[in-house]
Amino acid sequence: MARTLITGGLVITSAEETPADVLVEDGKVVALARHGSQNWTAERVFDASGRYVVPGGVDAHTHMEMPFGGTRASDTFATGTRAAAWGGTTTIVDFAVQTRGSSLRAGLDDWHAKADGNCAVDYAFHLIVSDVSEPVLREMPGLVGEGVTSFKLFMAYPGVFYSDDGRILRAMQRAADVGALTMVHAENGPAIDVLVEQALARGETDPRHHGEVRRALLEAEATHRAIQLARVAGAPLYVVHVSAREALAELAAARDLGLPVFGETCPQYLFLSTDNLAEPGFEGAKYVCSTPLRPAEHQAALWRGLRTDDLQVVSTDHCPFCFKGQKELGLGDFSKIPNGLPGVEHRMDLLHQAVVEGRISRRRWIELACTAPARMFGLHPRKGTIAPGSDADLVIYDPHAVQTLSAATHHMNVDYSAYEGRTVTGRVETVLSRGELLLDRGDYLGRPGHGAFLPRSACQYL
Amino acid sequence: MARTLITGGLVITSAEETPADVLVEDGKVVALARHGSQNWTAERVFDASGRYVVPGGVDAHTHMEMPFGGTRASDTFATGTRAAAWGGTTTIVDFAVQTRGSSLRAGLDDWHAKADGNCAVDYAFHLIVSDVSEPVLREMPGLVGEGVTSFKLFMAYPGVFYSDDGRILRAMQRAADVGALTMVHAENGPAIDVLVEQALARGETDPRHHGEVRRALLEAEATHRAIQLARVAGAPLYVVHVSAREALAELAAARDLGLPVFGETCPQYLFLSTDNLAEPGFEGAKYVCSTPLRPAEHQAALWRGLRTDDLQVVSTDHCPFCFKGQKELGLGDFSKIPNGLPGVEHRMDLLHQAVVEGRISRRRWIELACTAPARMFGLHPRKGTIAPGSDADLVIYDPHAVQTLSAATHHMNVDYSAYEGRTVTGRVETVLSRGELLLDRGDYLGRPGHGAFLPRSACQYL
Amino acid sequence: MARTLITGGLVITSAEETPADVLVEDGKVVALARHGSQNWTAERVFDASGRYVVPGGVDAHTHMEMPFGGTRASDTFATGTRAAAWGGTTTIVDFAVQTRGSSLRAGLDDWHAKADGNCAVDYAFHLIVSDVSEPVLREMPGLVGEGVTSFKLFMAYPGVFYSDDGRILRAMQRAADVGALTMVHAENGPAIDVLVEQALARGETDPRHHGEVRRALLEAEATHRAIQLARVAGAPLYVVHVSAREALAELAAARDLGLPVFGETCPQYLFLSTDNLAEPGFEGAKYVCSTPLRPAEHQAALWRGLRTDDLQVVSTDHCPFCFKGQKELGLGDFSKIPNGLPGVEHRMDLLHQAVVEGRISRRRWIELACTAPARMFGLHPRKGTIAPGSDADLVIYDPHAVQTLSAATHHMNVDYSAYEGRTVTGRVETVLSRGELLLDRGDYLGRPGHGAFLPRSACQYL
Amino acid sequence: MARTLITGGLVITSAEETPADVLVEDGKVVALARHGSQNWTAERVFDASGRYVVPGGVDAHTHMEMPFGGTRASDTFATGTRAAAWGGTTTIVDFAVQTRGSSLRAGLDDWHAKADGNCAVDYAFHLIVSDVSEPVLREMPGLVGEGVTSFKLFMAYPGVFYSDDGRILRAMQRAADVGALTMVHAENGPAIDVLVEQALARGETDPRHHGEVRRALLEAEATHRAIQLARVAGAPLYVVHVSAREALAELAAARDLGLPVFGETCPQYLFLSTDNLAEPGFEGAKYVCSTPLRPAEHQAALWRGLRTDDLQVVSTDHCPFCFKGQKELGLGDFSKIPNGLPGVEHRMDLLHQAVVEGRISRRRWIELACTAPARMFGLHPRKGTIAPGSDADLVIYDPHAVQTLSAATHHMNVDYSAYEGRTVTGRVETVLSRGELLLDRGDYLGRPGHGAFLPRSACQYL
Ligand SMILES: [Zn+2]
Ligand SMILES: [Zn+2]
Ligand SMILES: [Zn+2]
Ligand SMILES: [Zn+2]
Ligand SMILES: [Zn+2]
Ligand SMILES: [Zn+2]
Ligand SMILES: [Zn+2]
Ligand SMILES: [Zn+2]
Repeated sequence: MARTLITGGLVITSAEETPADVLVEDGKVVALARHGSQNWTAERVFDASGRYVVPGGVDAHTHMEMPFGGTRASDTFATGTRAAAWGGTTTIVDFAVQTRGSSLRAGLDDWHAKADGNCAVDYAFHLIVSDVSEPVLREMPGLVGEGVTSFKLFMAYPGVFYSDDGRILRAMQRAADVGALTMVHAENGPAIDVLVEQALARGETDPRHHGEVRRALLEAEATHRAIQLARVAGAPLYVVHVSAREALAELAAARDLGLPVFGETCPQYLFLSTDNLAEPGFEGAKYVCSTPLRPAEHQAALWRGLRTDDLQVVSTDHCPFCFKGQKELGLGDFSKIPNGLPGVEHRMDLLHQAVVEGRISRRRWIELACTAPARMFGLHPRKGTIAPGSDADLVIYDPHAVQTLSAATHHMNVDYSAYEGRTVTGRVETVLSRGELLLDRGDYLGRPGHGAFLPRSACQYL
Repeated sequence: MARTLITGGLVITSAEETPADVLVEDGKVVALARHGSQNWTAERVFDASGRYVVPGGVDAHTHMEMPFGGTRASDTFATGTRAAAWGGTTTIVDFAVQTRGSSLRAGLDDWHAKADGNCAVDYAFHLIVSDVSEPVLREMPGLVGEGVTSFKLFMAYPGVFYSDDGRILRAMQRAADVGALTMVHAENGPAIDVLVEQALARGETDPRHHGEVRRALLEAEATHRAIQLARVAGAPLYVVHVSAREALAELAAARDLGLPVFGETCPQYLFLSTDNLAEPGFEGAKYVCSTPLRPAEHQAALWRGLRTDDLQVVSTDHCPFCFKGQKELGLGDFSKIPNGLPGVEHRMDLLHQAVVEGRISRRRWIELACTAPARMFGLHPRKGTIAPGSDADLVIYDPHAVQTLSAATHHMNVDYSAYEGRTVTGRVETVLSRGELLLDRGDYLGRPGHGAFLPRSACQYL
Repeated sequence: MARTLITGGLVITSAEETPADVLVEDGKVVALARHGSQNWTAERVFDASGRYVVPGGVDAHTHMEMPFGGTRASDTFATGTRAAAWGGTTTIVDFAVQTRGSSLRAGLDDWHAKADGNCAVDYAFHLIVSDVSEPVLREMPGLVGEGVTSFKLFMAYPGVFYSDDGRILRAMQRAADVGALTMVHAENGPAIDVLVEQALARGETDPRHHGEVRRALLEAEATHRAIQLARVAGAPLYVVHVSAREALAELAAARDLGLPVFGETCPQYLFLSTDNLAEPGFEGAKYVCSTPLRPAEHQAALWRGLRTDDLQVVSTDHCPFCFKGQKELGLGDFSKIPNGLPGVEHRMDLLHQAVVEGRISRRRWIELACTAPARMFGLHPRKGTIAPGSDADLVIYDPHAVQTLSAATHHMNVDYSAYEGRTVTGRVETVLSRGELLLDRGDYLGRPGHGAFLPRSACQYL
Repeated sequence: MARTLITGGLVITSAEETPADVLVEDGKVVALARHGSQNWTAERVFDASGRYVVPGGVDAHTHMEMPFGGTRASDTFATGTRAAAWGGTTTIVDFAVQTRGSSLRAGLDDWHAKADGNCAVDYAFHLIVSDVSEPVLREMPGLVGEGVTSFKLFMAYPGVFYSDDGRILRAMQRAADVGALTMVHAENGPAIDVLVEQALARGETDPRHHGEVRRALLEAEATHRAIQLARVAGAPLYVVHVSAREALAELAAARDLGLPVFGETCPQYLFLSTDNLAEPGFEGAKYVCSTPLRPAEHQAALWRGLRTDDLQVVSTDHCPFCFKGQKELGLGDFSKIPNGLPGVEHRMDLLHQAVVEGRISRRRWIELACTAPARMFGLHPRKGTIAPGSDADLVIYDPHAVQTLSAATHHMNVDYSAYEGRTVTGRVETVLSRGELLLDRGDYLGRPGHGAFLPRSACQYL
């Protein structure tokens, strides 16, 4: 593998902003030095003057080819990880799904089969547990041993992924025993289903009603409940896709008590709102996901939570469905709209835009997008930082380039962009994954199969 | 009916302490006047000098003949209301039970049949809804029209009384629509059942483990959840038998927001603790009830909640089971111990003891035991106060008498006392119900059938 | 004194709404009875059919003839108590003022001299302590013995009434020792004075800047500080004229802890706002008082505080200054506008308007305006209720009459109304004070000198 | 200056734990590389195998030669910084003091004179503002320009350092304007002085009464007040030496709101308690400092605050007074005991002990002791980290060595140790400051005058 040198850039990690040259050998970062201080030579040299050198992004929440409501997410591992690479994300953690009545093992095998040989970037798996039973709980240590160290449970979607509180408690206990992290989708599904039924009965069938029935209070309630169950279980907890300020307040209160409780939000909750869900015609369907988008005033709370570290991770929950043929399944009945948004390609840029706008610092940008997800899910220091010994997953980022997001130019396999026409400052220029070039100043050089499965160790915040 | 005059006493209501004579005609209080100011004559005159004249107690939570775990509460309406009368309680609100698969109407009819002609004091009914369904919800307005204006739901006891959150939400919505009050037993039943199973599997079978598995956090969690569901439903909420300080904190927080949320506690939580559950041998079974007794440090929080009005009502949850033959069903398996304690006879005295000990004022004693339950459940001003027009449910109370509580002397049909050997200051001397004498200076004159069914109006705190 | 009978009315106290006849003898309520049940005769009979019979109002915060900023409040005890009587207020508690360098005794004597022989209604005194010193502290028990059982300290107005935290602590300790209640004006005076100086230096001289510099946070801060000092002193605390929601939140938090902390607000904070302070020209000066009026959104919080009992009392802080010649002292410099509003006449009506609008119940109206101030300041049950033995301070109130508030018709000695043109429903019809007629269906029969000094016992909430 | 190489160690920063060689040239870190990956040679090579390589400590709170109560702290800059070097601390920020009536400039000049040419390690200055006036406020921008970017105000010590709230507000406003950070000693001095006087009057003169009169509530109150004043001023705030859990709770609440509020604690609050103040005889005097030591249960809250980042910095507040002759000034009157403890030498070791005991992680150890103080006070990345370009302030730390703290062996100029006889695991082995050796495997090679004044930039957390 080519010895590579990146000179002249500003190396930004979650901890430091250091003008430094970076030397890469055998797919690893081997040394950092003051600009020009070492007489390093290399087969491949990048001049990063005026650029940032940052760790490759880690997107800890994606759903490639995810089956949902009779269809499946439109990005395969091949197309989705290619889009990730374009956007400077060099690691994804996708959700393998246990089918009800089947084993965790079978679910994991399915996902390995989908990903194996297809990925442009490295990948790991969480496991969605749909069916908490004694045999299933007995599978958990084996899976942890294989590097699947986080299990997701749903408090929403009765009849599909939903687990009742007894099952959640059992799974949390077991996860804690085996050193795994429990993730929850925190919404009170049984209550929401009542409101959905009542809304439809009243003829409220448009996409915006999706946002109205999935009440913020019911996200907050479930978040509180998950925290209390985790306390009873003596287990750490990670709440995915926090969107309501009231839910965030529950996390903040728990963290003030010193509890091992963590939270993630997503760009869509930071940049979009119920105004999008209410766009005329059926346009709002493009923004249907769960937890839903919230009124715009929730955004300030989420940004604050990112600054106060009450939220630690920004993932995408990438789960794209085409407007034509997929989102349209819900014409006349919002409850039939597949839930999910495309996003894996634009997370790094949207968060950099927040740097430009003064919402977060450059270091916090890298922490939220790279370092914290790597630590949270047992991938650090291999991923998420730039230090001697780390994987050479490196992004040369041009902080001054201006780009306009659009379905016309994006690389995700989906026929619309949730950010169509939005102009942002900053752009990924060059991407290396384990020292290999995926993107070279705008030329895509990646290939399916470069990406390797990453067994993960335990959460490193415990 | 005899014209009756009570002279020379200190009339205590929740609002006033007035030296006044009380004139009773036709079962009603007709006038109050300064001692000796009127030349009233009467057929029956009681000299209450040195005594308090207080409203008859209203016990808003009893379970006469309640079926539970294959047995039934040992007090019938006849024996239980007789004991109530002995203790100065002249009104009870008992819980009629809907059997799963049957109608509310049938449950109410059952309870009417049990009570009719048997009661020594007036009575009303709440309805336990075991089975929330569309037909059941449609019954609710009719029952409200008959004076059953409160419905109880269980977040505990899966498979028995338990309703999931969707059902609870529907019932709350409906109750709010028809002007009824929703009551909940707030414990996370599915989670508790897991802990019960695990404790038994570890061989933890003693009564004290009943208290350990029913975690305070799981009472608090359910209390929080009930509050949030009530907010979503736009419904008022009454939480029964609050025992954990963490649950109380949830109520206090909700009330600070101005939400119509109410809470009840019971003498057992104020005077007993897990120390009792841990009494040697199988003695602890005498104290098994749910929510369970808590460590003694919770008592201070509950007393404080009574002072700050974060708790509004003290009821008994009277549900006695004999130690012999009934509590013993749980020998070797605490989960089989019938849940419940005797208490209807001693509520007024135990709360007066709190007055003696300086925990609450005399007026607050009457408010907690008489006025607030009457207002809460739509019985005021007929019950719960002493004012022109009120029912002449009157107690002449000797604040200086000393008595020792004991199964040897109590009148409840149960073979033990939860307060055996406890000495308290204060005693009921004379009791009138609608102007009729039930107890005359220690002579019991009551009779089954005097007590009448009380249709109730809506909660008066809304 | 004439035996008086009020028949046919609805007697409303803080606790009950009772259709009852009220019999008055020797200036006292002697009996209440069901309408028509007694064959009472009387020299004076009022038919109160369709009317409320309520206790005379107790205004616990007035400043008659108060010196302030080189002028003095425009109502004397004669004119101010006459206006009170017109408005159904039959008791005031006015603030005697210790002059710096002089004794408490001298201040009290001054106030007795001003009031004696001039008052139309009964009156009592608090004492403003301007100068906490050892000799002053030694005076306190004697004054308590004379029925002056509350002492007010100022955290605002450095150089005038201000006491630093050491002096406040000493005074609180002493007050607690002698069974007196400490009242505080809670605003951070030293910080506010900085902001005043800076505003004036920037040319911000209009009345509205009075509201801007007296920041809500600085009221909240002082409230928090007063509470903590009271905890250190082991003393109860009463915070006067709460206007900021953040200050109310501090009280609510303290009360949740069970601390003996109390709060008062005033009609101006409930019905007026910074919009009034910003009225064009110099009109805003009419609304200058301290604590200042707040933005309108604070009103909802205050109403909620009145419902949740985090605020217990509504007083007026009546301290009128004429617009001409008095308020005008501050033309071109808001800091020279005498602080204070007229209000003693309209408190009962404005709070009844809140009943009409559904903000509070009828019973809460009476509690806030009559019963709670009487209890708080040791005047109950003589004042604040209607019960055998109470003073016959009675108001027959027509709940359906409509009136328009205006300086043209009010009886306070001030040339403007803070509520000019406001229409309210409800009106005082007849007023008795200790059985004597002050107002008889709109005819004023009161006289200076009827009102007597009321020695007060200790706060009855402790 | 010698080119230096440290090989084989585990480089620990606040962000990473990296096995790496560290190359030093010209007093700077020039490169980090995987162990043995580069063919680096150097004049001086240290084998750090089995050792940690950590940044030199930054102690942001010391008082060398500080005058207090008629005496002065017993460490000069010469002795104090020598002890710091022994303990692995290579930067101190000391408090220059403005004398009342004199200028800030004069105070700073004094401190420069004391430090210049005497220091073994680098140093910077905060300025204690004793006398907030217009001329003083006008000096602030000039001082900021010279690298004195933080100003400390006292809410305690009336008559000495105390500023009232108006002065504090003015100083905060000014500091914010000029980009400086306001530090406060948060205790309610006027209230404490009352309690001191009363305690002495009761004959409570022992050292332990020092802890009793300086009530935790009065630290919390002042902390709350400082936060509110900072909000009004629009200024960031740093609270020094937080010792009470109630004060910490105020910081946590402010930080949850996203306010720029920071807190520091000290080893004495983490490892000592009122038990030490109550040691027999006059021994307790050794532990007299302000804020005072608290009951042991506060320690858990402080550790939690360090974990939750509600406290960001651990400094020493090093201010030693000999027991003989200095602490003894307070025999018979605790208020005369000079306030302060020795500590500059043992901060790194005591915090490492917390790592050993599992209270904090290794990275958090470095963050609290090195990185965060450097960032907080504008010294990063020159100080507080190990990265290309940083000052070569490096400590080789033996994590397995065991040592016993004692006055017999420490290097501070004081006749007792607050930790006498305490055994800790971990020890400083070698210390470099800007590439120069201060300590070489236990041989002290430092010299007065090596240490240079560090002008500081603004707080880097804003
Ligand atoms: Zn989800
Ligand atoms: Zn997802
Ligand atoms: Zn129950
Ligand atoms: Zn029950
Ligand atoms: Zn005031
Ligand atoms: Zn006033
Ligand atoms: Zn200090
Ligand atoms: Zn200090």
